[in-house]
Amino acid sequence: MTVREVTADQLADIARGAAILGTGGGGDPYIGRLLAEQAIRKHGPVRLVDVDEVPGDAVVVPVAMMGAPTVMVEKLPSGEEIHAALATLQEVIGREITHLACAEAGGINSTIPFVAAAETGLPLLDADGMGRAFPELQMLLPTLIGVTTAPMAVADEKGNSALIRTDDNRSAERFARSLTIDMGCSAMTTQYVLRGTQLRDGMVPGTLTLVEKLGAVVRRARGHRDPVADVAEAMRGHLLFTGKVADVVRRTSGGFARGTATLEGVGADDGRRLELEFQNENLVARRDGEVVASVPDLICVLETDTGEPVTTEGLRYGFRVSVIGAPCDPRWRTGAGLDLVGPGYFGYEHAYEPVEKLAAKLGAQCAN
Amino acid sequence: MTVREVTADQLADIARGAAILGTGGGGDPYIGRLLAEQAIRKHGPVRLVDVDEVPGDAVVVPVAMMGAPTVMVEKLPSGEEIHAALATLQEVIGREITHLACAEAGGINSTIPFVAAAETGLPLLDADGMGRAFPELQMLLPTLIGVTTAPMAVADEKGNSALIRTDDNRSAERFARSLTIDMGCSAMTTQYVLRGTQLRDGMVPGTLTLVEKLGAVVRRARGHRDPVADVAEAMRGHLLFTGKVADVVRRTSGGFARGTATLEGVGADDGRRLELEFQNENLVARRDGEVVASVPDLICVLETDTGEPVTTEGLRYGFRVSVIGAPCDPRWRTGAGLDLVGPGYFGYEHAYEPVEKLAAKLGAQCAN
Repeated sequence: MTVREVTADQLADIARGAAILGTGGGGDPYIGRLLAEQAIRKHGPVRLVDVDEVPGDAVVVPVAMMGAPTVMVEKLPSGEEIHAALATLQEVIGREITHLACAEAGGINSTIPFVAAAETGLPLLDADGMGRAFPELQMLLPTLIGVTTAPMAVADEKGNSALIRTDDNRSAERFARSLTIDMGCSAMTTQYVLRGTQLRDGMVPGTLTLVEKLGAVVRRARGHRDPVADVAEAMRGHLLFTGKVADVVRRTSGGFARGTATLEGVGADDGRRLELEFQNENLVARRDGEVVASVPDLICVLETDTGEPVTTEGLRYGFRVSVIGAPCDPRWRTGAGLDLVGPGYFGYEHAYEPVEKLAAKLGAQCAN
Repeated sequence: MTVREVTADQLADIARGAAILGTGGGGDPYIGRLLAEQAIRKHGPVRLVDVDEVPGDAVVVPVAMMGAPTVMVEKLPSGEEIHAALATLQEVIGREITHLACAEAGGINSTIPFVAAAETGLPLLDADGMGRAFPELQMLLPTLIGVTTAPMAVADEKGNSALIRTDDNRSAERFARSLTIDMGCSAMTTQYVLRGTQLRDGMVPGTLTLVEKLGAVVRRARGHRDPVADVAEAMRGHLLFTGKVADVVRRTSGGFARGTATLEGVGADDGRRLELEFQNENLVARRDGEVVASVPDLICVLETDTGEPVTTEGLRYGFRVSVIGAPCDPRWRTGAGLDLVGPGYFGYEHAYEPVEKLAAKLGAQCAN
């Protein structure tokens, strides 16, 4: 078995790369990094396991923070809620939890599982349930193969917790979202109990390796060359726009950070505008009114000079940023996938077109 | 042991009397009656047990419907949610549930426990946790003696359920209320697991006997004499107003039926007005602007001709009604009791004065 150990030194790259796949959501990667570094220094390295090497009878539990990233940056997890969320679920599973996993790739939700793995001593899957971050809980690949979100546990830093049971994954999202709001707009969750045999169809393999690589690309490129181009290449993505942030309208509603950012073009994009709409994550990018990237494809905002990812709550007037569009996991592009996470679900009228097709139309500068 | 059996024939009186103590809330008594009659016809009579006769090591669980009565009258419980709510709680209590109880006295929440008792075969306490109905879940006498609401279970008719754990009873209310809203604004709940030794301080004894008596008073008085005066006497209450409904403003917000009803006086009260403010239950009665009864005392609206109780969702323009104020359980009149259920909690500025004192001031017609 290829068991690798992740030490605190690797967390900086992982957190930075996770914020790129987080497509604006997933919470502040810096805070997640600090929490994971602290947990690993205290409890020792985390064992990372490939999806293919997990036994079929393994019991795998994705852990995640739920809530508005705008709140998560100010209301830190205490660590206790991880134990509560796992213990609550363990009570009803019947079999011992053998592995932890990331529900999504993005910001704090790529690093909080390291905290959970360090604290419990359980191995962590090199994988995630989305291949990116999405704002709602039913938006995991396990939903597409009929795995239920529930039983799921929600826990806060005050010792409050709830165990939810439902066969309907959108109901689980609704119940957990309400509880999360009541718990102060951020909470720890455990859900989608998977058997080892379900991982190949239910997870995106290699995510943590990919985010560490993306983070390293940004770190190495700094000061030397064009970090945005390097990131785009590593993601098989396309540069959609280069500009500066002219306006951000955001509100925290229904437990989500929602809003729109307007970018004004600079350089080759001088005189053009890009509008980004987000619900925790970036959902749609419109260049001079035309959709140039849309869920479920990834829309990543990076600082133009450094390649550092910018989260939706980090968007500020005057920031010089570049926007990359990158293809999502192919399972999201199926009919069932688009029903779950396509533009229609989020209330948009445009039909989904793959970002590589839109980028070709745009005649934009392509990274590969 | 004085174990009495309640048959389907007694449910009409119980449901009617419960709607009187329900002070406008607790849901439609007719629907609760039908459900309880059906359950008793199917499973046999329900054993009613006095508080004093329950062994000290008994495990007593109050069951209740949570939500907006405006919704409960249209979205009936299926019966399945009772089993789910009890089974979910049973899993975490450790000891077998030995008795069921009413969380409150009022409408559907005095008859749903009969459904639960009939379906499970468990005995039902002749008692309740309030001595009336209140709109929120922390407003039970057990809160005053330090019993936590949680662990509590919430379940709906679709098979969804949640188990809540918290040490804070207002948090339990908030979590359960949100889940109830998500479940369609009405849900079945089990909570406040009590030991037999806690019943004397944590429950109001004899409630079901009292509601059956009140219901019988109304039934017997009809067509013969003044039913309102008889009910007032049986409750040690005071007639505060006789009039007709001139206006009702209601809205369902935050999972509650809220609003104000305006009555115009008839007979001795001709030319006067009474305003009733409610949140599921009647909270405050103002006669020509002066408070004449207020939470935690009971404010009951009865049809003047028949003495039939009128729920807040049943208030309609033109109804001829009489308003009775009656003293609450004395434990609600303590400092801690008033903190929990007094006018201040509901956002009112007036200080609480006992209804018998206000009635004496008013010089109103007293029933006793």
